[in-house]
Amino acid sequence: MTAAQSLNLVPFVSVHHMMQIILETGVERFLGELSAYIEEDFRRWEAFDKTPRVASHSREGVIELMPTSDGRHYGFKYVNGHPKNTREGRQTVTAFGVLADVSNGYPLLISEMTLLTALRTAATSALAARYLAPEGADCMALVGNGAQAEFQALAFRETLGIRKLRLYDIDPGATRKCLRNLAGLGFEMTACSSAEEAVEGAHIITTATADKQFATILTDNMVGAGTHINAVGGDCPGKTELHRDILLRADIFVEYPPQTRIEGEIQQLAPDHPVEELWRVITGQAAGRRDRQQVTLFDSVGFATEDFSALRYVRDRIRETGHFIELDLLADPDEPRDLFGMLLRFPGSSLLAEKERGLAS
Amino acid sequence: MTAAQSLNLVPFVSVHHMMQIILETGVERFLGELSAYIEEDFRRWEAFDKTPRVASHSREGVIELMPTSDGRHYGFKYVNGHPKNTREGRQTVTAFGVLADVSNGYPLLISEMTLLTALRTAATSALAARYLAPEGADCMALVGNGAQAEFQALAFRETLGIRKLRLYDIDPGATRKCLRNLAGLGFEMTACSSAEEAVEGAHIITTATADKQFATILTDNMVGAGTHINAVGGDCPGKTELHRDILLRADIFVEYPPQTRIEGEIQQLAPDHPVEELWRVITGQAAGRRDRQQVTLFDSVGFATEDFSALRYVRDRIRETGHFIELDLLADPDEPRDLFGMLLRFPGSSLLAEKERGLAS
Repeated sequence: MTAAQSLNLVPFVSVHHMMQIILETGVERFLGELSAYIEEDFRRWEAFDKTPRVASHSREGVIELMPTSDGRHYGFKYVNGHPKNTREGRQTVTAFGVLADVSNGYPLLISEMTLLTALRTAATSALAARYLAPEGADCMALVGNGAQAEFQALAFRETLGIRKLRLYDIDPGATRKCLRNLAGLGFEMTACSSAEEAVEGAHIITTATADKQFATILTDNMVGAGTHINAVGGDCPGKTELHRDILLRADIFVEYPPQTRIEGEIQQLAPDHPVEELWRVITGQAAGRRDRQQVTLFDSVGFATEDFSALRYVRDRIRETGHFIELDLLADPDEPRDLFGMLLRFPGSSLLAEKERGLAS
Repeated sequence: MTAAQSLNLVPFVSVHHMMQIILETGVERFLGELSAYIEEDFRRWEAFDKTPRVASHSREGVIELMPTSDGRHYGFKYVNGHPKNTREGRQTVTAFGVLADVSNGYPLLISEMTLLTALRTAATSALAARYLAPEGADCMALVGNGAQAEFQALAFRETLGIRKLRLYDIDPGATRKCLRNLAGLGFEMTACSSAEEAVEGAHIITTATADKQFATILTDNMVGAGTHINAVGGDCPGKTELHRDILLRADIFVEYPPQTRIEGEIQQLAPDHPVEELWRVITGQAAGRRDRQQVTLFDSVGFATEDFSALRYVRDRIRETGHFIELDLLADPDEPRDLFGMLLRFPGSSLLAEKERGLAS
């Protein structure tokens, strides 16, 4: 197929393809490489056109569009959040995304992003922890053992070498699922019967719970000096996981302050409470962890540039793996100003027959 | 396939499918029915969550997302505008769109919208003209004979019975293309050598030119009393077609004032210049055409609800025509909180092999 013939075709990565790509690449290598793409884009943060997500709220949930651009590529993610979905066998969060060429506006990739978002969230957490976790950290508490837990575990092992996991979920079934899924993959895992027990001896605490409410998964007394908290679950208005006192004691690192102040743990704080931006830490313009006593908190909500990085990575991966199909998404008339002509010349066109009758009469 | 099995599948309408749907339905019937869906949604205007489009501008063009929701369905369109694209054999404007279920956030339809946008633009023009064109109108000037021209002609015939067309384009090739495409379809057409000549005797003037500039396709002296102007081409900042004096003399009707004041002909006027909203005319809350002398102007820019109506219509049409495929877009794990388990249980999963080795050792 020549370049001219394929202008109308856009590569599409289905859920099936994404699983093939992830498994062929290896989950840990995928997470590590994805983390590097995310880091690369945080390093050129100022090149991005950043805007808070465009949300459409309803009684049952939210549908959001998260666009961004670096001037060369444009990307957006469609993502929903509907906590009641699990009761109907649906995902709480599903997502898909599009990467496009800024110079002509044509889409370059359409991809499932439910799996991809889970992976990019874990890859971003691990990236932040590389700058914020205490030196020598080897034990992580995982509070909340749902869809995100295994990806966090693997990302932290790939990036920081964390092998000891202390698991707790309000639903023991979730912890059992997590233990079962990670069994044999080289972790030393302890199932705990409370969050208090889970955080004992942990250098890193990852909270990734799902309930949409102001919850208190961690209280101040549970967080020892020197801990790094990776707060993943508090990610929309009205959904937080940490007691406010922790926030007041911790040094807080965020992706994009205007969004995190609305969606993150820091929605509990005054709008001018000082926070540091992760990209400034990564570029060396601000300090990450300064000492062994400091409590650091990555208040993760997920930002559009991370999805952009993930789409960039998938686009590069499909070239090598070939796991995609091509969708005939774009009209490609012989003559751009002749859309109607496409209909006329369509094989067996009823319109052509009508014209011929008209011309004959 | 049971309902439970198909939760992950989303119908996709390619350009090829869209052409099949349009031709099987008949272009004119499609335009007429689409116009009725658009009218239905204008009638319940107040039910819609309306927001100006989210635009990402670059030197070469713009990429936009146009979301809206009526509380039951959510829709958005991705659309680009890159005037230089035609020089590379690409479309200036391409688009695709998504319709989703607000109650669970799952997409219900992904569709090409390059063709569909051309049709919805023409269907909206004809709808507005039903309320604004002078009684007994039977002659339309078409100034600008590009991709939109034939659809405008067919929509106006289907909706208002217009059979006489007076065509003019700065490029005589465009006029020839339009004459050729519409030959035999029952129009009485006159090719004109100037816009002045084209508007002679026309009751309706449709302007649909493509240049991105402040152009003056029509000057005030060209517009006789009683004319309805359907201004389609002035649809983004810096792109207008009419001399300001026409605007000052006409009664102006718009889709959504906050957007039209930025993108439409009225960007030339003071931000508080009085305009009427089309939905208020359609619902009888405001007058459309009041007398035979009035100059009416529909300052069309294209609004998200029209794309929403078009996606609704296509969703209904694919049930009857069957022209679509299903995309495996959404992750559908056996257990919603077990995304990782999907990877483990994927046929031939390398991860499972790794686990088994780990458990055996």
